[in-house]
Amino acid sequence: MAEGDLREHFPFIKKYSRLLDILSDKDLASLGDAYINFVYSLALSKVAGKPIGRKLDSNTLSLALKRAGIRALLPQRTDKHKQADATEALMIFGWLSGAISIEETVSILTKEGDLVDNISAILKLILERIKIP
Amino acid sequence: MAEGDLREHFPFIKKYSRLLDILSDKDLASLGDAYINFVYSLALSKVAGKPIGRKLDSNTLSLALKRAGIRALLPQRTDKHKQADATEALMIFGWLSGAISIEETVSILTKEGDLVDNISAILKLILERIKIP
Repeated sequence: MAEGDLREHFPFIKKYSRLLDILSDKDLASLGDAYINFVYSLALSKVAGKPIGRKLDSNTLSLALKRAGIRALLPQRTDKHKQADATEALMIFGWLSGAISIEETVSILTKEGDLVDNISAILKLILERIKIP
Repeated sequence: MAEGDLREHFPFIKKYSRLLDILSDKDLASLGDAYINFVYSLALSKVAGKPIGRKLDSNTLSLALKRAGIRALLPQRTDKHKQADATEALMIFGWLSGAISIEETVSILTKEGDLVDNISAILKLILERIKIP
């Protein structure tokens, strides 16, 4: 999708004024789940040189949140599943708001090294770019 | 992802020389499943004015294949699940090959009327544009 057109299609992203609103939004996490499975599958396909469809597990997603320093913003008793939801919500918010493209996301996901580090790098990049307190 | 760059990232799409190769490729269907759940969720989100994540059922996908006149190309005893796989494979092939964008796909999915008709229209459009025998 052409980045410039995104905001027109999804005006609801304007309602998020605080980072915590994004991280704790279950609906956003639900859309983010579909998004993240797609970009992760694209990344695996690019590396393998053949199409692959696979889901990312909650553990990887919650670890990435912690490593990006974002987990500390959530209430202390937030469980792993909700931490993974927060990663999904921030990932799709980054895309919907035009802060990051699918191409850049796939490009970072396919970098050598640890998958958790790569997702964490994406989260930090989105955080820098969306400028939401 | 910028359309022009797609072919570079996924050179494996060049190996499909016949439509039947695409329709019966399980790996392509697996990546297509992630893709279709994402674009369908985007379409629902656009219409609802809030983020939604949902999966498309096999029945809808297999009906769309039939309505687009493509089901007849598959062996007669192909079951519903494999018909749905064929829809998923063709949808993602259309995107990977640059025949259709996420934006155009979402725009057709959100047209008023029957969802099966809308998916069928997308399949026919891809078929026209990819020019694979």
